[in-house]
Amino acid sequence: MRVLGIDPGLRNLGWGVIDVAGARIAHVANGICHSDGAEGSLAERLRSLHAQLTEVVRLYAPETAAVEHTFVNKDAVATLKLGQARGIALLVPAQAGIEVGEYAPNAVKKTVVGVGHAAKVQIDHMVRLHLPGVKVAGPDAADALAVAICHAHHVQSSTRLQDALRRAAG
Amino acid sequence: MRVLGIDPGLRNLGWGVIDVAGARIAHVANGICHSDGAEGSLAERLRSLHAQLTEVVRLYAPETAAVEHTFVNKDAVATLKLGQARGIALLVPAQAGIEVGEYAPNAVKKTVVGVGHAAKVQIDHMVRLHLPGVKVAGPDAADALAVAICHAHHVQSSTRLQDALRRAAG
Repeated sequence: MRVLGIDPGLRNLGWGVIDVAGARIAHVANGICHSDGAEGSLAERLRSLHAQLTEVVRLYAPETAAVEHTFVNKDAVATLKLGQARGIALLVPAQAGIEVGEYAPNAVKKTVVGVGHAAKVQIDHMVRLHLPGVKVAGPDAADALAVAICHAHHVQSSTRLQDALRRAAG
Repeated sequence: MRVLGIDPGLRNLGWGVIDVAGARIAHVANGICHSDGAEGSLAERLRSLHAQLTEVVRLYAPETAAVEHTFVNKDAVATLKLGQARGIALLVPAQAGIEVGEYAPNAVKKTVVGVGHAAKVQIDHMVRLHLPGVKVAGPDAADALAVAICHAHHVQSSTRLQDALRRAAG
């Protein structure tokens, strides 16, 4: 199963793709979509992010996707900006017919690090442990890979549960 | 000049199209994109909004667009939701190569009603005065028409200013 994880942001939108087979996970690719380069308006920056992320989905053809369900409590302006980028992050996989999971940061940390209040540096460390030899494009790409690992774990758990229920019923 | 105004929202995204020639404005169409009907996830609802609004742009081929720059100060969850819908509202015109203006609610009210702190019912009333005989699909569509009227006014003022400057220079 190929999984796309996304860490949304207007300036830097991190993404990571992994392959999962049973207990084994392998790194495919990761990167960051930047919108600083896009000249001018917010609309143009969102259009640029949409085009870049659509290209990632086209290139790596993930079967399932997940986006971090971030809350910014700093201020309404920052939250609105994040929401706009998050809209794009959710839209692109949906347009490709891919289901999109959403995970709270604590759920991602709990799955990848083992505790819900892990520091950013710990996530980076565990992502490198899970995916030996990976070259990570930056903190946002590391977060995106963590979201992908979290999603893979949850999808597999729920598949195993369904299999067990089916065996019990049959 | 054909102008598209958008009042973004996740549940109800209002839109309004007007034609402007000199001081005359004429109603073309207005409506509301709903995402309640879209089954399931947030991603699927955003995909549905994107598809509906893209169809509006295809049908009415506006030359310029504007989106209300709303702030919700209720809570971070509501602001994040609004941001996601707003991301779609900005993306769709940009994908069609149309420039997108942004106006604060007070600027819209000041242009359409004459004061910056007008009540919603006043906006609705003034939109009907500006566009005699218009049938408005609902409050969100009225707000979208107000945004379109505001944008038309600003684009024309800036065009007149540029013309005057060109004449003064030439």
